[in-house]
Amino acid sequence: MLLTALELLGLVAFAASGALAAVRARLDVFGVVVVGLTTALGGGIIRDVLLGIHPPTTLRNWPYLAVCAATALVVFAFHPQVAKLRRAVLLADAIGLGVFATAGTTIALASGATVYAACLIGMTTGIGGGVARDLLLREIPLVLRKEIYAMAALAGAALVGVGHALLLPPGPVTVVAAAVVVAIRMLALWRRWNAPVARGSGDG
Amino acid sequence: MLLTALELLGLVAFAASGALAAVRARLDVFGVVVVGLTTALGGGIIRDVLLGIHPPTTLRNWPYLAVCAATALVVFAFHPQVAKLRRAVLLADAIGLGVFATAGTTIALASGATVYAACLIGMTTGIGGGVARDLLLREIPLVLRKEIYAMAALAGAALVGVGHALLLPPGPVTVVAAAVVVAIRMLALWRRWNAPVARGSGDG
Amino acid sequence: MLLTALELLGLVAFAASGALAAVRARLDVFGVVVVGLTTALGGGIIRDVLLGIHPPTTLRNWPYLAVCAATALVVFAFHPQVAKLRRAVLLADAIGLGVFATAGTTIALASGATVYAACLIGMTTGIGGGVARDLLLREIPLVLRKEIYAMAALAGAALVGVGHALLLPPGPVTVVAAAVVVAIRMLALWRRWNAPVARGSGDG
Repeated sequence: MLLTALELLGLVAFAASGALAAVRARLDVFGVVVVGLTTALGGGIIRDVLLGIHPPTTLRNWPYLAVCAATALVVFAFHPQVAKLRRAVLLADAIGLGVFATAGTTIALASGATVYAACLIGMTTGIGGGVARDLLLREIPLVLRKEIYAMAALAGAALVGVGHALLLPPGPVTVVAAAVVVAIRMLALWRRWNAPVARGSGDG
Repeated sequence: MLLTALELLGLVAFAASGALAAVRARLDVFGVVVVGLTTALGGGIIRDVLLGIHPPTTLRNWPYLAVCAATALVVFAFHPQVAKLRRAVLLADAIGLGVFATAGTTIALASGATVYAACLIGMTTGIGGGVARDLLLREIPLVLRKEIYAMAALAGAALVGVGHALLLPPGPVTVVAAAVVVAIRMLALWRRWNAPVARGSGDG
Repeated sequence: MLLTALELLGLVAFAASGALAAVRARLDVFGVVVVGLTTALGGGIIRDVLLGIHPPTTLRNWPYLAVCAATALVVFAFHPQVAKLRRAVLLADAIGLGVFATAGTTIALASGATVYAACLIGMTTGIGGGVARDLLLREIPLVLRKEIYAMAALAGAALVGVGHALLLPPGPVTVVAAAVVVAIRMLALWRRWNAPVARGSGDG
């Protein structure tokens, strides 16, 4: 129940971030909806393809699609106001990252993946939608350029893996791990933490 | 029989559109063939990955590959003349979009997907090749920027879904739905229909 | 044993090429590692998705990941020196291309794919990682622009297919075919062989 609520929040957050980026790229309303949907659903589709779940779960649950499409339409209609909510969007994006990375790991473990593979698949679930968004909009994926992002997803996935190895119940572990991801992201944004760049790498 | 003929026409059209775009991006002859193949076969490969059909159908039918490669080579050799055939290419591209979106939906339904999932997978089959082409050539996918395109594919997929729910025979339904997609695309091009862009979205 | 050693060399070479490109694009240390991993592991993941091997083999072997990540970190720390080793990197990249294209074909044949499908999947395994690298870094994939590259991979895959049809033992055939790929690539670089570009294709 708590997990479903968190997952919906994550979907809405990712759909909003994709739609906002698409509005900025001057796409039409359908393009905005498609990029919003791709951002929200992309990570889960990649997860299901890697795990061999056919057809992908998100393509079988129409409420997910409806929620994401409605979110994108709201962003399209009210984008100046939404853009002002930058902090709220960043928080929601962090929640989405945390939920998808940790729930992805839990789902992979339940599908019989090893702890090691499950952590990688979980991290991919968390960052996949954003990478798809940036590829569609012809940008170098933000997760490769910005504050500790994929590292936060990997930390959450690893926590779920540790909990699994210790035989802890997966539900609470997922919630705690997701909260850790959100905390890392918020701290990274607040403190402007960044991983180091190679010195003298120039313009190549 | 009719479907196979239409499918070949769609493959040729998509291969030609990919090859033309690759010639414009100054790729060499192998690059032109690869982009042409990717555009023609990409949607079907994505469809089979989502449905869990291994290995993808198009990688098992060498005539498909031969037809697409030959098309790309013809475009490479005669590209100024082909470029003048812009209207014919747009018509053929619309036929390809219609055939792939509706046949993709029919194949997904035959694989046991729900109507809802089948429509999404069908739409993805129709637009997937063009998205892959634009990603390879580093352009924002045309389907996100241009006249009613993905919407036309979704309309065709939905018609197949309705026909399936009404227990109509899949063959004729697919042909009719593909024709509807072609008609929508041609009208959109002729009337310069476009979905609205958000006001004041600037250059972001 | 020989094959495992060659495969490790290929992973290291691809990881290094991805990491170097990421350093040039001014990514941070995590981005460099991610692009290095994607380049090294991408082809194998695409291969396993196409063959329906779940979850992908490379996500189940942590030593592969560790070797690739360590390579990327070494490149990040010593990139000016590594960049000077341009010829060594090109040689290693050619070895990686040869090993992945031919081993990918052998794995696909072992999974029951037809010779024809196996050759295409093998070529895709060889070039897939580099395409993913270039997409992430927003460049037109080098394999579409440069000296005989995908053609060399396809030649190696076809040799494995011929060996399979002649019932030759797969191990030695793979090694010989990989060596042929390396030789073609080295000759193409040395002689500056390039496939022809369409005349008068302009800037489109």
